[in-house]
Amino acid sequence: MLRVAIIGASGFTGVELLRLLALHPGVEIVAVTSRQYEGKSVTEVFPSLKAYPYSNLYFSAPDTKKLSNLAGAFFTAVPHAAAMKVVPELLNAGAKVIDLSADFRLRDVNVYNEWYAPHLCPEFLDEAVYGLCEINREKIASSRLVANPGCYPTSTLLPLIPLLKSGIVDTKSTLVIDSKSGVSGAGRKALLATSFCEVNESFKAYKVGEHRHTPEIEQELSIAASEEIKVCFTPHLVPMTRGILTTIYAKPTKIISTTDVIKILDDSYSTERFVKILEEGQLPSINMIKGSNLCVIGVKVDKRTNTIILVSAIDNLVKGASGQAIQNLNIMFGFDEYLGLDVIPLYP
Amino acid sequence: MLRVAIIGASGFTGVELLRLLALHPGVEIVAVTSRQYEGKSVTEVFPSLKAYPYSNLYFSAPDTKKLSNLAGAFFTAVPHAAAMKVVPELLNAGAKVIDLSADFRLRDVNVYNEWYAPHLCPEFLDEAVYGLCEINREKIASSRLVANPGCYPTSTLLPLIPLLKSGIVDTKSTLVIDSKSGVSGAGRKALLATSFCEVNESFKAYKVGEHRHTPEIEQELSIAASEEIKVCFTPHLVPMTRGILTTIYAKPTKIISTTDVIKILDDSYSTERFVKILEEGQLPSINMIKGSNLCVIGVKVDKRTNTIILVSAIDNLVKGASGQAIQNLNIMFGFDEYLGLDVIPLYP
Amino acid sequence: MLRVAIIGASGFTGVELLRLLALHPGVEIVAVTSRQYEGKSVTEVFPSLKAYPYSNLYFSAPDTKKLSNLAGAFFTAVPHAAAMKVVPELLNAGAKVIDLSADFRLRDVNVYNEWYAPHLCPEFLDEAVYGLCEINREKIASSRLVANPGCYPTSTLLPLIPLLKSGIVDTKSTLVIDSKSGVSGAGRKALLATSFCEVNESFKAYKVGEHRHTPEIEQELSIAASEEIKVCFTPHLVPMTRGILTTIYAKPTKIISTTDVIKILDDSYSTERFVKILEEGQLPSINMIKGSNLCVIGVKVDKRTNTIILVSAIDNLVKGASGQAIQNLNIMFGFDEYLGLDVIPLYP
Amino acid sequence: MLRVAIIGASGFTGVELLRLLALHPGVEIVAVTSRQYEGKSVTEVFPSLKAYPYSNLYFSAPDTKKLSNLAGAFFTAVPHAAAMKVVPELLNAGAKVIDLSADFRLRDVNVYNEWYAPHLCPEFLDEAVYGLCEINREKIASSRLVANPGCYPTSTLLPLIPLLKSGIVDTKSTLVIDSKSGVSGAGRKALLATSFCEVNESFKAYKVGEHRHTPEIEQELSIAASEEIKVCFTPHLVPMTRGILTTIYAKPTKIISTTDVIKILDDSYSTERFVKILEEGQLPSINMIKGSNLCVIGVKVDKRTNTIILVSAIDNLVKGASGQAIQNLNIMFGFDEYLGLDVIPLYP
Repeated sequence: MLRVAIIGASGFTGVELLRLLALHPGVEIVAVTSRQYEGKSVTEVFPSLKAYPYSNLYFSAPDTKKLSNLAGAFFTAVPHAAAMKVVPELLNAGAKVIDLSADFRLRDVNVYNEWYAPHLCPEFLDEAVYGLCEINREKIASSRLVANPGCYPTSTLLPLIPLLKSGIVDTKSTLVIDSKSGVSGAGRKALLATSFCEVNESFKAYKVGEHRHTPEIEQELSIAASEEIKVCFTPHLVPMTRGILTTIYAKPTKIISTTDVIKILDDSYSTERFVKILEEGQLPSINMIKGSNLCVIGVKVDKRTNTIILVSAIDNLVKGASGQAIQNLNIMFGFDEYLGLDVIPLYP
Repeated sequence: MLRVAIIGASGFTGVELLRLLALHPGVEIVAVTSRQYEGKSVTEVFPSLKAYPYSNLYFSAPDTKKLSNLAGAFFTAVPHAAAMKVVPELLNAGAKVIDLSADFRLRDVNVYNEWYAPHLCPEFLDEAVYGLCEINREKIASSRLVANPGCYPTSTLLPLIPLLKSGIVDTKSTLVIDSKSGVSGAGRKALLATSFCEVNESFKAYKVGEHRHTPEIEQELSIAASEEIKVCFTPHLVPMTRGILTTIYAKPTKIISTTDVIKILDDSYSTERFVKILEEGQLPSINMIKGSNLCVIGVKVDKRTNTIILVSAIDNLVKGASGQAIQNLNIMFGFDEYLGLDVIPLYP
Repeated sequence: MLRVAIIGASGFTGVELLRLLALHPGVEIVAVTSRQYEGKSVTEVFPSLKAYPYSNLYFSAPDTKKLSNLAGAFFTAVPHAAAMKVVPELLNAGAKVIDLSADFRLRDVNVYNEWYAPHLCPEFLDEAVYGLCEINREKIASSRLVANPGCYPTSTLLPLIPLLKSGIVDTKSTLVIDSKSGVSGAGRKALLATSFCEVNESFKAYKVGEHRHTPEIEQELSIAASEEIKVCFTPHLVPMTRGILTTIYAKPTKIISTTDVIKILDDSYSTERFVKILEEGQLPSINMIKGSNLCVIGVKVDKRTNTIILVSAIDNLVKGASGQAIQNLNIMFGFDEYLGLDVIPLYP
Repeated sequence: MLRVAIIGASGFTGVELLRLLALHPGVEIVAVTSRQYEGKSVTEVFPSLKAYPYSNLYFSAPDTKKLSNLAGAFFTAVPHAAAMKVVPELLNAGAKVIDLSADFRLRDVNVYNEWYAPHLCPEFLDEAVYGLCEINREKIASSRLVANPGCYPTSTLLPLIPLLKSGIVDTKSTLVIDSKSGVSGAGRKALLATSFCEVNESFKAYKVGEHRHTPEIEQELSIAASEEIKVCFTPHLVPMTRGILTTIYAKPTKIISTTDVIKILDDSYSTERFVKILEEGQLPSINMIKGSNLCVIGVKVDKRTNTIILVSAIDNLVKGASGQAIQNLNIMFGFDEYLGLDVIPLYP
């Protein structure tokens, strides 16, 4: 059994790791940390875990030194800027780390410094692997530090990367990425802006033109296209708990049909368990993927304006965070890639 | 008192007309029709109207001949293709008509025939005025047939028309219009697709590249731009009852700032009671306008990709349907334009 | 014009007072206070009020001394224990006060002390009138201090008081009051417990057997019954923004029919504009009353178990708070009772 | 591998059986029937099942004769009155049946005839076992026909039966059962009453005093109490998709504490995997159990009125329908009782 610890387990990604790992036959959770809930039992804080193997699991303080020898694998589920304070020590103690924050996603420390905060350990950026499993599987397998992708980037990159690689996208036209996220993406916090009465029966765009996932998307698209890509990225807040649906508008380099685009995606993902390309005429919705590690993608080429429209749906807490993190762990430690992730979407 | 009748009053636009007209001091509702509810009292079918002046109002059959002499103004709130069967008779009897269907919105009968159904009375298309009040106020005032705009077009045209008129929009680049609507836009029907369990906690795009509001948007934008405009229009379904938020991506003809774009919109709408332009840094949300006749517009120019992003919010049943219809009635009959529409948004 | 001030206007009851008073022809709002938002404009904090006559209204500090001479009527919309610190000064300056907190609702200071906190000015309890308008209209008219009823009590007392007065309720059997409230009842605060992801798609009972509205309900029922009444009161949290639906179970003193109970209620409320008794076979729902000052009541006598079941629906922010407060103001100052309250429920 | 067929698999209980059985290691689904979707693939109708072992499963016509030899176990998930038409043939062919309808739940055919419809095969009522697993486990194990309990009855019986058996409940006082259900309880149908815009942001009681689950609850409580029990049962509709929360009010035969009641329940359920009794001071909510086969129960004795208040939470589609049906199958066929049911609640 692989000994696993979760640093920062009191948020939504933490409890989601616990939900999914409960059914993972190859791991044992040896520690979960939380300053806020130190000393409390996990099932007291999260009663949804009550009937499961966590009855003896208690939150402990995030004492990295003490913890680094306890486990072979760590999920760091703390906010950005906090992750880079604990990851080096864990790596130096010989552990492998899947970091769910943004701290090791950007290769260029200047970009990180500009969008986030001064980076404290840029020397780890080179070896960190961007953990988009279907794209970087081999590098992940041999890595000791995986930067788990952001939720919006996951929903954007999976449909776009094969098209950029294929050369079918006109990179001189602006890529428009219009994303819509459920509220759990904002985290488990007491905020007026995410209180029920503010969000329910409302809808809004936010951080238009300035969301921090923008450089992450651009970095990975640029790698796929082998040239610098800029995107116009607009996130929106949907009155639902889980899910991201992203609508992407791209210009083709030549006249192309819906069938053609579907073929490119099918060729890329035909053997993937967690990425499903819909047939022509079908489009994804959140209730196809809720609670699961799936990414479902639909395609429509608008002939009237010569635009490729891609629509992708993921559960932001699963494929967009904790599920992909477990998928990364499975790859890093040689487990079957879908262990702990064989969860059917909840419908209705 | 102006005698008013509503043809097809059993849907959401019908009951919304009744909600708003209840507080209109200048009109008297003399007839409401519904095949389904013929003979039933309005307050039995719509208990939300229980405490108001409708206790003696009963649904009658849509006998146009009989009704045409009863009222001076008619709202036709029946589906497209049904409206064109009743409107001519009402006009010929001397009444004025505000039609909430799509039947008289498109000037080119061929476009109507292609997107909808064979038109039965194209001879009325020339005189029909497109009832976007803030844009066509003068023509509306002298018209006897107003085609009330669709909900998506209203949310798209109000922010875009002043920019197209100003010449700031690069009309050679595709305009991307990404709209998100509450479920009431689908009407008051028993459909599996709009049942609670299908819509709740889900989100999807639908009719991508083929929604019938596309030619309506293009027609009015083309008039504003004095050249043919094509748009890439994608509607989405939000798990909320009311509201449309539309995000528009346009390329400028030159380098332009957020302030510049706001100024153009401010100049167009500064005296308008129902259109509000937000200051730089602010963005609209549905809970700013729910239940009201307002259209609130926010602007952000994304300098990184040189894109004008416009975000507009309306209540699809008010400014997007029944509210604007009453605004049209007020203009046509010389009432103060805001009578019956002085409704504060419901927040929270 | 009556000069009115709102002390503590930054919560949901505050903004709801502003929404409703915007359409009240007889009052002028001269001050709104908020420590948190001091100096900010009302429309900046509450953009839903943007298009209305509040463009020059700014939040000020709650300097009671200064304010007490500005206005003839005060709504105090601050939390319990805070209200009793400001109300005496306002009264002493000659103003009339409608207090939306619990501070002046309980006649017995010992009961207040037990359920809330030590009362600071019990000398005002005797003159305070419990502002349940339909029941205490005459006393309210001549009062200078009205204690505006709680939301749960309003939904409970309106259906039960006529039955207790009529002697038809067996007061030796426990009255079971099972209430369900929308989330806005918890106020406009940043709390994890009322964050979207905690409340949405969930449902729970809370404060079972210990909610502070219990003694308020018992006090008013005891007055109606002329004997001491105890109730078993259980509140629940519904994933919706507005509305309270209360289901009441009472034992009759004799065999009685649904029709009989409806008749008692009809006799009490036939001339009331804001209380509607449904016919046999009909039951209220929140979408009959949302946004309005209505209380709709349905009745069913369960013959199998000889139980009177009453179901009432109110909007907790209107008839359960700000609407009833305005109704009280109208009564106190001789306005038509429905001024500012002629709002049709929002459906759908 | 046990060969299993689902008769009537196009509703919510059908798709939920498919979701859960996908992870059941001991069964193979050999047929799913649906008149409406005959010939269509399961994953076309239910895209949420897309990535799982159902790619070759197609809906067939409900030809019972042909099907009866295909499988050893049948779930009949058709409406009441339809089930009794197919169950006899399946039994006569030697299969075992778990019927999710009401057709075999009531022992007294007269009661069935009164509340439902004329029973066509009352000769099977005697041998049918009421499939409340924790209560009737032994009888279920040796049965060939299990009547799977209704959702409301499951949420009511699990907390009440141990108390009635213990003699602590005063059976001369009326038991008040106030239940609140998510919308999926109404089934997967195109109905105006369960359309999004009718249900969302609303709440109501329905079928007050006349819901068909009443005699089912009374039958099983009477067995537990060894005397005839009548209940006053009121269902309500909550704007959420899944979950039932039931609040029960019972009078004790003597002064009793919350601790005492919890002890009785703990003694009954301490070894149960799917029933969890909360500690004093805790209460269940739907987000503790959503998507899982759990029933969580909280207790509060209201000393002021001497009332036992029980609050239970289940997922109506799992423990209230398909999950319990699989639990019954596991018992009937000697599988570990939790196979296919080891699903962690989805939170948030």
